[in-house]
Amino acid sequence: MTALTLRTPYLLFVGSETEPIYAKTAAGLAQWAPEKCMGQLGLPGGTIDLGLPKHDVATAAAAGAKSLVVGTSAVGGAIPAEWMPTLLNALLHGMDIVAGVHTKLNDIPELVAAANESGARLVDVRVPPKDIPVGSGKKRTGKRLLTVGTDCALGKKYTALAISNRMVERGFSADFRASGQTGIMIAGSGIPIDAVVADFLSGAAEMISPNADQDHWDVIEGQGSLFHPGYSSVSTGLLVGSQPDAFVVCTEALRTHIKGWPDFELPSIQAVIDRTIDLAKVVNPNIHCVGISVNTSPLPEHERAAYLENLSSLYGLPTMDPLQSGVDAVIDKMTNA
Amino acid sequence: MTALTLRTPYLLFVGSETEPIYAKTAAGLAQWAPEKCMGQLGLPGGTIDLGLPKHDVATAAAAGAKSLVVGTSAVGGAIPAEWMPTLLNALLHGMDIVAGVHTKLNDIPELVAAANESGARLVDVRVPPKDIPVGSGKKRTGKRLLTVGTDCALGKKYTALAISNRMVERGFSADFRASGQTGIMIAGSGIPIDAVVADFLSGAAEMISPNADQDHWDVIEGQGSLFHPGYSSVSTGLLVGSQPDAFVVCTEALRTHIKGWPDFELPSIQAVIDRTIDLAKVVNPNIHCVGISVNTSPLPEHERAAYLENLSSLYGLPTMDPLQSGVDAVIDKMTNA
Repeated sequence: MTALTLRTPYLLFVGSETEPIYAKTAAGLAQWAPEKCMGQLGLPGGTIDLGLPKHDVATAAAAGAKSLVVGTSAVGGAIPAEWMPTLLNALLHGMDIVAGVHTKLNDIPELVAAANESGARLVDVRVPPKDIPVGSGKKRTGKRLLTVGTDCALGKKYTALAISNRMVERGFSADFRASGQTGIMIAGSGIPIDAVVADFLSGAAEMISPNADQDHWDVIEGQGSLFHPGYSSVSTGLLVGSQPDAFVVCTEALRTHIKGWPDFELPSIQAVIDRTIDLAKVVNPNIHCVGISVNTSPLPEHERAAYLENLSSLYGLPTMDPLQSGVDAVIDKMTNA
Repeated sequence: MTALTLRTPYLLFVGSETEPIYAKTAAGLAQWAPEKCMGQLGLPGGTIDLGLPKHDVATAAAAGAKSLVVGTSAVGGAIPAEWMPTLLNALLHGMDIVAGVHTKLNDIPELVAAANESGARLVDVRVPPKDIPVGSGKKRTGKRLLTVGTDCALGKKYTALAISNRMVERGFSADFRASGQTGIMIAGSGIPIDAVVADFLSGAAEMISPNADQDHWDVIEGQGSLFHPGYSSVSTGLLVGSQPDAFVVCTEALRTHIKGWPDFELPSIQAVIDRTIDLAKVVNPNIHCVGISVNTSPLPEHERAAYLENLSSLYGLPTMDPLQSGVDAVIDKMTNA
């Protein structure tokens, strides 16, 4: 009964991909977990360049690669036939295969047979571990920050990564804790919270951030939104199980409605703050908001700084775009509180 | 993509059980769905009497029984070997087997083979249907009432059953809608909401109570509690997907803490009312509380009426114990609103 744990370093597999948008898993890993990425491997015709050394399976294995990570997605989330010789070869060299695509590695008999033979693992990061317990609600040691959102897809993962990376740079004890598939690959462990059966959601969230030293911070990747008509239960379970001491509200400039749900207005930042505290105070009465993180990319560049300053004075909170500006003010607020 | 639907009438199987507590599924069916229960079948040594005609498989099949329902639970939720000849015989007679015990019927090769041969079905009511969509949040036609709770196991199912049955008696168009395994057997259809994968929780709740005539009421069985440290996400998804017009708060006299979570105080009825409205108003701005349902059995009998009257004047709402008193006041309030 543990979270998924991946073996590193990774060899990033990008197939014969030519469009960077489809190789965004590989690009995210190269950006956020460069220390885990020993190289990349493509197929003839591919043009993706992650800025990493290029290896074939044999040289990667000889150089210590422990997992081949599928870093691109094919049409329909399949495992194309042209990938199979590479995947089988990696297994024969003892490397795990790690993938988060729709088709499960463990449903492909050829791969299962090769993995059984070599002792390597097929790791489907979309599949949660078995035997997750029901949430206990018991207070755990250590400190936790959770990123929450006004909606999906507006920077909860990147905000958590930016904060945890910067905390480590500044000498704090901190870990990024992943709740989604790309985050799991970046962190090397975690649970895909949206794939967990309902009864065990907050239990899974409790597993993601276990007991830790009193001054240690787990910086937890949020999911969805408490106001989302489809996913609010995921966000609720993650919040209650995370029992955060601090949270950052993530939003996107100019977004007015829930993405893909045009009948639902985006909640206000204040509404998100209030509900987050309301739902979580039963598991952590000290919970408080320490900042606002905004994806300002929809704004013209010259308007972004003023937009952030305006929000900051409106809410009296540190406000930043984690891809544009620093996160030090948030870290100061969470660690001085 | 539909909710589970069971074939009726049922033959209730109680094995060789002698303790009524273990046959509570059968007893609940005989009490709440007598029109669906054509008889009972026991094994030698059993003493359970549900007040139904006693049949063997052949006479039940000849009399039209369409499903043999496992109405008792054995140690560990297993299917004991002594049940197998009866189950196989029912399948050979074309009857479905329906069970909600821990061991899945579909994991027992002998049963699967017999079902394939006869064309009968093995229905594990703990297993949700595949291909549940993400919740849309779209307003559906018809009216809905949801029972919500201060905690688990304090009468949400029975309250919903009492209300829907009495509504039908009084000539209203109403259906009981089930979200748990016993409820599904009673209703003949439904989805075990706590077994649904997190991303699809509110979508499952939307399937449970589909579009209906404008004056029709779906009376939906609630699950868990919005304040529960383990199960609040289940309750949240069910609430948001149900988009109820009306709700009844269910509680138990003298209960002070969440059952099994002694560190968590029971929320107040007012707190449950407030949070229920707060979370659901985005999908139904008309949501309102129409009553309080109390399991008064922990009180001495002579104190129960005064307890209910006191609550009623405190909250200004109809208040009842659905197993002791009538539910007409709640029905009047929901249908006159």
